[in-house]
Amino acid sequence: MTDSPKFLSEAESAALVDDELALSAAREAFLATATGSTFPVVIGRSSAPENRFTLKSGSAGDLVGVKVGSFWPGNVDLPRHSSTIVLLNPATGRLSAVVEAASANAYRTAAADALAVDILARKDSRTLTVIGTGHQALHEVRAVSRVRPIDRVLVVGRRPDAARAFAADVTARTGLTAEPVDAQAGVTAADVLVTATTAREPLFDASWVRPGTHISAMGADGPGKQELPVQLYEHATLFCDLTEQSLTIGEFQHAPDAAPVQLGAVLAGTAAGRTSDDEITVFDSSGFALQDLTLAAALLRRSTAPGEAQ
Amino acid sequence: MTDSPKFLSEAESAALVDDELALSAAREAFLATATGSTFPVVIGRSSAPENRFTLKSGSAGDLVGVKVGSFWPGNVDLPRHSSTIVLLNPATGRLSAVVEAASANAYRTAAADALAVDILARKDSRTLTVIGTGHQALHEVRAVSRVRPIDRVLVVGRRPDAARAFAADVTARTGLTAEPVDAQAGVTAADVLVTATTAREPLFDASWVRPGTHISAMGADGPGKQELPVQLYEHATLFCDLTEQSLTIGEFQHAPDAAPVQLGAVLAGTAAGRTSDDEITVFDSSGFALQDLTLAAALLRRSTAPGEAQ
Repeated sequence: MTDSPKFLSEAESAALVDDELALSAAREAFLATATGSTFPVVIGRSSAPENRFTLKSGSAGDLVGVKVGSFWPGNVDLPRHSSTIVLLNPATGRLSAVVEAASANAYRTAAADALAVDILARKDSRTLTVIGTGHQALHEVRAVSRVRPIDRVLVVGRRPDAARAFAADVTARTGLTAEPVDAQAGVTAADVLVTATTAREPLFDASWVRPGTHISAMGADGPGKQELPVQLYEHATLFCDLTEQSLTIGEFQHAPDAAPVQLGAVLAGTAAGRTSDDEITVFDSSGFALQDLTLAAALLRRSTAPGEAQ
Repeated sequence: MTDSPKFLSEAESAALVDDELALSAAREAFLATATGSTFPVVIGRSSAPENRFTLKSGSAGDLVGVKVGSFWPGNVDLPRHSSTIVLLNPATGRLSAVVEAASANAYRTAAADALAVDILARKDSRTLTVIGTGHQALHEVRAVSRVRPIDRVLVVGRRPDAARAFAADVTARTGLTAEPVDAQAGVTAADVLVTATTAREPLFDASWVRPGTHISAMGADGPGKQELPVQLYEHATLFCDLTEQSLTIGEFQHAPDAAPVQLGAVLAGTAAGRTSDDEITVFDSSGFALQDLTLAAALLRRSTAPGEAQ
């Protein structure tokens, strides 16, 4: 046999990942959208139909592989989401590495948001509103507050007690002032608005959004999911991670005439980002394979250079 | 962390697999086509576009997962095909096992052929003709000769020297009489005809096929691939592994009006197989995820019960 495949367990990848690694991997992935390839997303299920898995595969440079994401809603003592990234050796096609990445996946998704905020939000954005009070939402707050001078976090949740608890958690973990508010108050006050839910209908009214707001829609990643009102798109500039995915499984499945700009093109300087302080910018994240491949590669590099781990 | 994922290396799975294990796993997989699920096949590629990978995913019973098959045509010292099977824990969605299965994959594919021959070919089939002289073809000869009293193997290859060498290899490895012949002689003499090529056009003339012949088409597994002449279907009874795949990436992509019967239905007794000794039966194998999942599970069972390994 030739070189053995590398394996990073969930415990190992969870110990290796941090926001900086994830943001660097996200930047690499978004830049690679110009030259890399992604292949059709498969949404499968187990024999119990409520348990779903997603296959996202792609290749770019010397990376080629697939992320198996799973969502088992009935998990009680374990996270409901899991993630396994499989890398092939680009020279031989053989298995190169397997990275369990359930914890890292939350960093990866939040890093795409942070990258979008860093590229698209006003530099003076101070108020961050997050709709959603789950595990992912906390990652979003932390990642976004690293790239903008956020000094106030507003939390919108369906259940008031969950919103209160989440706000307390934000303060405890980040030191930021955080308070639960209703949707209209939260949307109206936002410099940056992040939606991180599993919603299947719009979470707010488009008329509530102030000029200059940046919105990152993180939730929609399958048919039927929706967080944003389509009326918003009449007065906003639209961005996404990957156009073909965004129009089929992302937020813009509900706006078939939308022509969102891929964030990677803005990052590469081949497309414009925000052009004025009054512009409303919308970024839709559907999540794409190259994020997973660059994340796995970054984790593997750090695992073999322990002196550089943080 | 809960239970750690199991890992079977290529060397381990190659040492564990045999025709009997593969045939048993194939039977289990074909029976599961009645109740299990398979999801759309993804055909991707690396940055070098000649290198391709295929994702086949599915679930049945307590099995859920994906096979990553790869085909790197430029491999010189390594096999061109590789295979990695990823199983998820049906209770939690977390990674359960990773099985490298390049060698085992050849057994798995040949086992589907053996199962089809066992179900569909005349009991007195003695002459096996194989078109194709590659690695897979040898597996087909061995697996088929376990289920029928084959006493003569005829070999058809594009290059006479390859056909001669392959025939010698068959005799050396199986003890069977084997000889290279031209396509017409091979097809006309066959009780069982197996095609195991990467052809993109028919390998023989339909008029050469005698009544009573069974044909297993093992090669077609992607758009544009074809081994059989469509004229054959006017006088043959058609079977396949999985109808939706067979009509899109298998042999019957070239016969859109074909309504092949799934072999699993014959195995389960819910559909008829061969009904007379004069019938021509055709089985198309496109390869489906449940074969990979049952194979991986069988290898894992054998790996933890070494006393039962052969």
